[in-house]
Amino acid sequence: MQVSSSTVVTYLKSLQERIMTDVQKRDGGSLTIDAWRKDPIEPLQGYGITQILESGDLFERAGCGFSHVSGPSLPPSATQHRGELKGAPFEAMGVSLVFHPRNPFVPTVHMNVRMLIAKPVNASAVAWFGGGMDLTPSYGFEEDAVHFHKTCRDCLKPFGEDLYPRFKKWCDEYFYLKHRNEPRGIGGIFYDDFNELGADRSFQMMQSVGDHFLKAYMPIVDKRQNTPYSEQHRAHQLYRRGRYVEFNLVLDRGTHFGLQSGGRTESILLSMPPLVSWAYQTRLEPGSQEERLIKEFLIHKEWI
Amino acid sequence: MQVSSSTVVTYLKSLQERIMTDVQKRDGGSLTIDAWRKDPIEPLQGYGITQILESGDLFERAGCGFSHVSGPSLPPSATQHRGELKGAPFEAMGVSLVFHPRNPFVPTVHMNVRMLIAKPVNASAVAWFGGGMDLTPSYGFEEDAVHFHKTCRDCLKPFGEDLYPRFKKWCDEYFYLKHRNEPRGIGGIFYDDFNELGADRSFQMMQSVGDHFLKAYMPIVDKRQNTPYSEQHRAHQLYRRGRYVEFNLVLDRGTHFGLQSGGRTESILLSMPPLVSWAYQTRLEPGSQEERLIKEFLIHKEWI
Repeated sequence: MQVSSSTVVTYLKSLQERIMTDVQKRDGGSLTIDAWRKDPIEPLQGYGITQILESGDLFERAGCGFSHVSGPSLPPSATQHRGELKGAPFEAMGVSLVFHPRNPFVPTVHMNVRMLIAKPVNASAVAWFGGGMDLTPSYGFEEDAVHFHKTCRDCLKPFGEDLYPRFKKWCDEYFYLKHRNEPRGIGGIFYDDFNELGADRSFQMMQSVGDHFLKAYMPIVDKRQNTPYSEQHRAHQLYRRGRYVEFNLVLDRGTHFGLQSGGRTESILLSMPPLVSWAYQTRLEPGSQEERLIKEFLIHKEWI
Repeated sequence: MQVSSSTVVTYLKSLQERIMTDVQKRDGGSLTIDAWRKDPIEPLQGYGITQILESGDLFERAGCGFSHVSGPSLPPSATQHRGELKGAPFEAMGVSLVFHPRNPFVPTVHMNVRMLIAKPVNASAVAWFGGGMDLTPSYGFEEDAVHFHKTCRDCLKPFGEDLYPRFKKWCDEYFYLKHRNEPRGIGGIFYDDFNELGADRSFQMMQSVGDHFLKAYMPIVDKRQNTPYSEQHRAHQLYRRGRYVEFNLVLDRGTHFGLQSGGRTESILLSMPPLVSWAYQTRLEPGSQEERLIKEFLIHKEWI
């Protein structure tokens, strides 16, 4: 392992800063910046920075968290494929964001980059990487989905032509609501347990993912943010956000693990939408834009 | 086992009917009644009736489900304490309700009564019971909590003086959000795996719980439903509903099991609130009613 955690931390903090400065400038609302530290008596040690813009004109809730934690023993969920590292001390660091825009025509977005280092007592440290980004529209636009996926492909291209198709598929599989028989959104890329390029090159790939986030998402924001919308569009958006909550609270391994292992609840739940609704068996008007979302966008599809 | 499932089904259907007729009469809104049946190709067989009132003046969402299902093999979650019945064919029936009132001063309520019958191939069938009811206010009133708990105690009294304290404790322990270090509400009663009185008497106890629901809840609705409220009260209610969602989607075993085992999603998620909000580190004004909820109601307390 050649990548030092301080190098990664420096990158992650600057990525968070860059993204949230951009968000704040676009929105005009005020940013809450909250530096936190875990109580030293807890088994999971660490600190982090939450940056969040709430009740903005453009973003109803845009949260981005940086954290750097360490623990005495790797949790089982992290060593499923790496039995030899079971119970080793570890260090984890990452940036994770979810943006919930106000305008129903601007999609919700998620991005995450993280590194995990296992430090077994009698062997060398091992680092691996995870992350990705994915888009969840309430109203679908083919050109937005294509732009988002092309940017995902571009950011991985220097690291291997096979990565985009692999990580695209992985994303489709991971962000899937089995109980609704529905993908969470139109996908993007997702990867985990990654160090097949070696630590240095894998870290470069992580930087490429982080650096491409604004390029992937903000042109879509620019294009859709002034679309006029009605109460009905808004109601559809709040209803669709329910699926986001269902995914994150019922299915997301990171959320579950975080909440159950004594992680920082307010930071983990940065991903929750500001306002959400549920209703019984909502019916979609045949031929409506709302129905098109389900029939033409929330399906298995190659966007490029 | 002397209790036949058709006797229990008859009771459950009439209970649902009685409760939802009362709800409809009070609210004046229209009731959706949806009889459903599982696709015969699915492993879990069964049918049910959903009754739900949405967007009412009094109840923003009041859902009550009856279901009667059977499966070829008891799920592990149901046989934790009954290893000898592992994998036996089973039959389950119950009524479950959650009411989310519009006025923030009227508490949310949950009630459930259910019977499970295991039918091992080489042994007699075994039935057991589960259920309870509990109250989740956004604004606390001591007299409401006392009335609710007294009614819970009264409904169990004929079956043993020890039951209320046992089931009250069980309820406090079950409806607890560890990740928030907060009980879901002011409790009530909860029990599971119950057949220590024999099937007949346990079924009578289940009927007593069901029959006491309206007496436990509706006097509180009567007292609070015309309380004037502001936008701030409403915002607090929507925020508190987030805790309800967190409990049900992250922690509730029934919800999890239902969603993961191919249960009927729309019926399982009847419990979701109609409108919910999340915000980062909401601060409570010292001495406010909102703070009193946390300090004086969401605590371990004997209400009687």
